[in-house]
Amino acid sequence: MGAEARLIELGITLDPPVAPVANYVSAVRTGSLVYLSGHGPVDASGTLRSGKVGQDLDLEAARGAARLTALGLLSTLRTELGSLDRVTRVVKVFAMVNCAPGFNQMPEVVNGCSDLLVEVFGDEIGRHARSAVGMAELPMDVAVEIEMIVEFD
Amino acid sequence: MGAEARLIELGITLDPPVAPVANYVSAVRTGSLVYLSGHGPVDASGTLRSGKVGQDLDLEAARGAARLTALGLLSTLRTELGSLDRVTRVVKVFAMVNCAPGFNQMPEVVNGCSDLLVEVFGDEIGRHARSAVGMAELPMDVAVEIEMIVEFD
Amino acid sequence: MGAEARLIELGITLDPPVAPVANYVSAVRTGSLVYLSGHGPVDASGTLRSGKVGQDLDLEAARGAARLTALGLLSTLRTELGSLDRVTRVVKVFAMVNCAPGFNQMPEVVNGCSDLLVEVFGDEIGRHARSAVGMAELPMDVAVEIEMIVEFD
Repeated sequence: MGAEARLIELGITLDPPVAPVANYVSAVRTGSLVYLSGHGPVDASGTLRSGKVGQDLDLEAARGAARLTALGLLSTLRTELGSLDRVTRVVKVFAMVNCAPGFNQMPEVVNGCSDLLVEVFGDEIGRHARSAVGMAELPMDVAVEIEMIVEFD
Repeated sequence: MGAEARLIELGITLDPPVAPVANYVSAVRTGSLVYLSGHGPVDASGTLRSGKVGQDLDLEAARGAARLTALGLLSTLRTELGSLDRVTRVVKVFAMVNCAPGFNQMPEVVNGCSDLLVEVFGDEIGRHARSAVGMAELPMDVAVEIEMIVEFD
Repeated sequence: MGAEARLIELGITLDPPVAPVANYVSAVRTGSLVYLSGHGPVDASGTLRSGKVGQDLDLEAARGAARLTALGLLSTLRTELGSLDRVTRVVKVFAMVNCAPGFNQMPEVVNGCSDLLVEVFGDEIGRHARSAVGMAELPMDVAVEIEMIVEFD
């Protein structure tokens, strides 16, 4: 089953991609790779999930923010490629968590993104290399920011 | 108009690239991509722009540091490729801002770099994917550190 | 001399790679590149080197943690490629140091990794582009986390 069919099966509708907030673009292709810009957790109403994880958001809320961010990445990716079925591999995820001092459960937070990618693309295409790290500050105080490299055909 | 002609039109002279401060090189090519190491804001006299943005530097000074860093990246890139006219696309910018607690206007700061890249290369070649994030600390307390991936021919 | 022969000459034995702690894989290949996930400093007994550099660890201990992390990266890379002799270039190292406030000698810390790569692969193959930066927090409070991009044949 392709990624687009799988999204329907999962009952997931992607909102239109959010435009970049500054002088850059959301995605650039080079060869068979797409580089996606850092995305934050924005819901359909345009509201950002912001705050320090471990202080303003607990683990579950942060995991939800990571999942929401992954949905935004998929929306950008579909717009860039026309269809998610063109993805041949999720190569690399770099996931940045807005951590309160002493919070270091980033791997569990970022699974909110990684689990969704594996659900949508399956194990062979969806499993990716990853780093999940703790930032001092993120733009507009978003809870999570994630960038991604994807191989396509 | 090519990037080298555009630099002349803008009245920009690039200083010679600064040598790496440790056991690495400033640029590595693989296939049609150049990976540029993290660069900091160094002026012609070798002076670093250092300090926490939002505390030791204001937004305008930080934006200037991001622009200065971009000039250093261009200098390294020209040395690596022989001419900036060989650049076919600025693929990805990863920009790290040395943030004071609570400062989260990194997108505005990093536009100091992105605006310059678009001025020099134009929209089609110069517009890039990007993340602009806030670090706890940067080497030698520099205000901004930026790395970049560039496609060339 | 190839990298595998050089490891023997250096008296270095690589421990088996450590499995990822969450829903991702340690390495992904695309074209002639391998993307390695963020690795931390784990010794043969499975013990992590953790704490803030400049507070819980001094420069020498942190440099040792960076070297240990590099050994883990090499172990993962050998498992992925079958032999380190297939590496044609270490392209890019992104090294993140868990910094205490005010600590900014990341370049010296990360040379613990870079020096090992150059010892094992030699100057031509081993010298890489790099950023060495300071994080607010890292998973499980590890002292250093490093990811790497490698070109292979």
